[in-house]
Amino acid sequence: MPSRYLNFRCSVPWLILLLILLLEILFLIRFLFAFPAVHDIYSPSLFYPEFQDVNHMVIFGFGFFLVVLRRYGFSSTGFNFLLIVLGVQCSVLVEDSLVFLKAEQNGSGLKSLAKAVMSMTAVAISTGAVLGKANPLQLIVMTLVELIIFHMSRCINRTFLEVPCSLALMHVHLFGAYFGLAVASRFPQAPPGLDKNRSTPQSELFSVLGTVFVWVFWPSFNSILADSKQAAVLNTYFALAVSAVTAFVLSALTSKDGKFRMTHIHSAVLAGGVTISYTAHSIQQPWIAMILGLLGSVITILGSHCLQRCFNPALKLQDTSGVHFTFGLPAVLGAVAAVVLSVVKKGIDTQWNNLSSLGFMIFIDLAAFCQTISAALITGLITGLILNTKLLKTVPVSKYFDDQFYWEVSSKIIPS
Amino acid sequence: MPSRYLNFRCSVPWLILLLILLLEILFLIRFLFAFPAVHDIYSPSLFYPEFQDVNHMVIFGFGFFLVVLRRYGFSSTGFNFLLIVLGVQCSVLVEDSLVFLKAEQNGSGLKSLAKAVMSMTAVAISTGAVLGKANPLQLIVMTLVELIIFHMSRCINRTFLEVPCSLALMHVHLFGAYFGLAVASRFPQAPPGLDKNRSTPQSELFSVLGTVFVWVFWPSFNSILADSKQAAVLNTYFALAVSAVTAFVLSALTSKDGKFRMTHIHSAVLAGGVTISYTAHSIQQPWIAMILGLLGSVITILGSHCLQRCFNPALKLQDTSGVHFTFGLPAVLGAVAAVVLSVVKKGIDTQWNNLSSLGFMIFIDLAAFCQTISAALITGLITGLILNTKLLKTVPVSKYFDDQFYWEVSSKIIPS
Amino acid sequence: MPSRYLNFRCSVPWLILLLILLLEILFLIRFLFAFPAVHDIYSPSLFYPEFQDVNHMVIFGFGFFLVVLRRYGFSSTGFNFLLIVLGVQCSVLVEDSLVFLKAEQNGSGLKSLAKAVMSMTAVAISTGAVLGKANPLQLIVMTLVELIIFHMSRCINRTFLEVPCSLALMHVHLFGAYFGLAVASRFPQAPPGLDKNRSTPQSELFSVLGTVFVWVFWPSFNSILADSKQAAVLNTYFALAVSAVTAFVLSALTSKDGKFRMTHIHSAVLAGGVTISYTAHSIQQPWIAMILGLLGSVITILGSHCLQRCFNPALKLQDTSGVHFTFGLPAVLGAVAAVVLSVVKKGIDTQWNNLSSLGFMIFIDLAAFCQTISAALITGLITGLILNTKLLKTVPVSKYFDDQFYWEVSSKIIPS
Repeated sequence: MPSRYLNFRCSVPWLILLLILLLEILFLIRFLFAFPAVHDIYSPSLFYPEFQDVNHMVIFGFGFFLVVLRRYGFSSTGFNFLLIVLGVQCSVLVEDSLVFLKAEQNGSGLKSLAKAVMSMTAVAISTGAVLGKANPLQLIVMTLVELIIFHMSRCINRTFLEVPCSLALMHVHLFGAYFGLAVASRFPQAPPGLDKNRSTPQSELFSVLGTVFVWVFWPSFNSILADSKQAAVLNTYFALAVSAVTAFVLSALTSKDGKFRMTHIHSAVLAGGVTISYTAHSIQQPWIAMILGLLGSVITILGSHCLQRCFNPALKLQDTSGVHFTFGLPAVLGAVAAVVLSVVKKGIDTQWNNLSSLGFMIFIDLAAFCQTISAALITGLITGLILNTKLLKTVPVSKYFDDQFYWEVSSKIIPS
Repeated sequence: MPSRYLNFRCSVPWLILLLILLLEILFLIRFLFAFPAVHDIYSPSLFYPEFQDVNHMVIFGFGFFLVVLRRYGFSSTGFNFLLIVLGVQCSVLVEDSLVFLKAEQNGSGLKSLAKAVMSMTAVAISTGAVLGKANPLQLIVMTLVELIIFHMSRCINRTFLEVPCSLALMHVHLFGAYFGLAVASRFPQAPPGLDKNRSTPQSELFSVLGTVFVWVFWPSFNSILADSKQAAVLNTYFALAVSAVTAFVLSALTSKDGKFRMTHIHSAVLAGGVTISYTAHSIQQPWIAMILGLLGSVITILGSHCLQRCFNPALKLQDTSGVHFTFGLPAVLGAVAAVVLSVVKKGIDTQWNNLSSLGFMIFIDLAAFCQTISAALITGLITGLILNTKLLKTVPVSKYFDDQFYWEVSSKIIPS
Repeated sequence: MPSRYLNFRCSVPWLILLLILLLEILFLIRFLFAFPAVHDIYSPSLFYPEFQDVNHMVIFGFGFFLVVLRRYGFSSTGFNFLLIVLGVQCSVLVEDSLVFLKAEQNGSGLKSLAKAVMSMTAVAISTGAVLGKANPLQLIVMTLVELIIFHMSRCINRTFLEVPCSLALMHVHLFGAYFGLAVASRFPQAPPGLDKNRSTPQSELFSVLGTVFVWVFWPSFNSILADSKQAAVLNTYFALAVSAVTAFVLSALTSKDGKFRMTHIHSAVLAGGVTISYTAHSIQQPWIAMILGLLGSVITILGSHCLQRCFNPALKLQDTSGVHFTFGLPAVLGAVAAVVLSVVKKGIDTQWNNLSSLGFMIFIDLAAFCQTISAALITGLITGLILNTKLLKTVPVSKYFDDQFYWEVSSKIIPS
């Protein structure tokens, strides 16, 4: 048995290479024919620091955010890095095809790159759900499929439901989380006695490092495409601050003898940022942002208890780094909050006279939400099935969560 | 005995929750009544990258700067994070009350937030003095008291002594260090045989990581509110550079057989930034900045030897991460230097004719300095006494410096 | 024997102190006489975020990039930090002397500082070649010599060969790598059985952390002095992305049983940035940038196999962190590519009529390249000989790669 896996693995790099070369060739063709010369697409360099923040957050922050498992540090950071850079190129390519098909306006230069990097958040989140269980080839296939589907879903939202571009991109957390969950549900579960599925204080400290990076750069993420940047930054900051404080309180309240649990902290501190993402630019009163942050954190920590005890075992789902409650639930909450807030605002503006227009607005928002989540779940399930076909199925359950299966780790010294 | 502590700890989160909810409600009220709608308070987004730097420095930099103790990594970063985000909200609230009481001009938006984050440096420094000895509840009470007192002290400096706003904020290092020391002096000392009070190479490496972050972002910290940003950046950079080089030299000279000591390095490299903080915007010749950096580093390393051998044992003071010599002494030096430099400059301008005006200027500067330091020491002592009353006193000496008292650490694997 | 080394080491700090004091005095004199008052040299603060990026990359990124050896973490980060801050001061001084001698235009303020920080990349790279083998005194001497020679070489390129200033600075990778190699070739080799010359997963994770920082900030490095910043950023980003993907593919293809090797990854992901450095601002079509990134990564990974098996043993060269294939070979490739691209462009512009002018252009470019590389090799060899004279030769081979020789490491706990 093991030899079959070994033999297979030897051919994996060639498959990856083929995939990548194909991608590169497509990319070259795209640039040969469709890309305007760089000097034409000058956008103010004011934009650059924020692009840098988002780039740093996605590549470094998420990479180290995922370093939780004690023997999976190389793969967590390394594969995240590989998928992001591959995905960014692919994402630019896909967006360009959409421009070519007239489904989208022509973006340009740094802005187009920033959008591509932001789309990759979906992949980083989905990776978290199958962390330690998927091999690089599976991850690459997942990345490519997810990107294309996400761009299509975004395109549908924008074209048919007339969601503004910056908002359509904010569905990235929702899409990433539920796509990842659907994929993860098709992977066999790790045996309960598997010891590698743990964290050490050392690995958790690296994860804290990544989490703080994601936290710090989140205002840039929410504001980079917003019209009113200042409002987006302030609202996101307050939501994040409240959710961080709430995370500590609830972690102490829900755990045995009032101790803090690190996994609570580093999922719940980010909940505020996810929850506020749809509405950061439009909220006029910071206390609304703070309440959203509070609710986001509450739903994350309560969700983590409920999901891990009831939901996941029932569905035989193993969500390695808890993306369901870290990104999924707060994103659902955020989407609901966005509907409520826009209805209330419009209602007050029209003094609740024009109820049919309100109803239509609710319908549109809900349609965008349902379209995104169902696209994520359905295509995720299909992708999960494809990934677990014989062709790609290469990781035996006993080799889950282990760097040594993919990396040359100095054999003498393995961190305990 | 232990059960009493355990029982108490179970109720701690509720107390924290109460405190936090109270704070949140106050905060909501503040926004409901007093906060202008966000879109009114637009400030140029040029400001944003520097705000991001300062935010990153205070939350990430100081958090990891404090990861020195080998079994206290979670608490160092986690509690620092909790205190900063809680304190920033509280600080915005306090500043707003001062605006309401007409004691201060109306700041707005990002600038107000930046000031709040900068004020939190005082708390981060004070936390360093009681690192590993105070429990989260004590730290939260300390944070709230310290913030309010610091804002009052700053307000007195600004209103009665007419210190400019950006300078008044620079007293943050001085205030934080001496407040923290006064608080620490009221805590019982750790028994000399306690083994947890050590660092490992691994924990020191994390601390170096945090130190480099603080170092790199210090020019942003000193220049963010300055009128002449360019001068502030250049002077701070040169002062930091000289103090870093001097730190290595003096560390080798003062230790046995010429080896470097990491604790020297990561306190002395920052000394230049603290020393220059009062004068960074006004120095016209970089060599003055460099001499200040040199002196700052010298006073830090000599101070670390003197204080740890003579001063601290005499006062039964245990300053866990050495904030006295890292931030306290350089800040005193910087304050003195600021007086000397401004007197010399004014003296040269007036050709030493107007001695009474010079005297008045010295008096004002010294008054601001004395007011700050005495406020810090007195309120720090009182806070220390309050923190060690039965109500809050929860950490037995044997549980000092131990993550396991506050965090669920996987029981099998403890880093050595 | 050992006592001789010990005795010598006791006097090392004094020598460093002398050197540094001399430097500081020179620096003060420079400022007393030549430096314009700071307020005269205002440059737009727009520049500041990018300066911050480059500074962060050189001090933090390269510092942690070098944390590969398992017992050399303190020295890797600490000495890199010391050398950079010392070198920046020295570099400002040297550049000022050149201005004084009319060999260069007067730069000013932040821009001058940014150039100084960028020049230090050469030192950081050279340090990598002798990592673990040179003592601090040797490193400081090397830094000073290297800086002066690099500035002279740059000055020759600019004055006699009329290379633009921003391009002349991009020779920094080429110069640093070959200077470092020449120096390293004069150091005695570590005995083959020495166990300290290894990495642990923990140390590699820190190294990944540094590598990602260098990767993320590389577009800032290439664009900070460029005229067309947007083009430089986009081209660098695409080159880096392609080289990162290629690094993973080739690593899996060239290693046994298709596993990834971390050392491949963190040298090859950077190759794209080095390769594109000469041409990032002038390439008009991103696919050219991508091909350069691909070639850079290929040459790095193939080079790492060839060099470590054939070239290095033949020359008895030990290149600790592989700067030859990480920075040297991609820089050579980049220089060649720059010649080819500019010839093709000029050729197309002139419809290949003006061949003599093309020939002259090739001659000039090749002359700049040859002058830089030969200056690096010759002065590197001489420096290597000087460093290994009795006066400075202090590290016995058995003490290579060991923090304990330079740092007070808590004796109980040594990371395995």
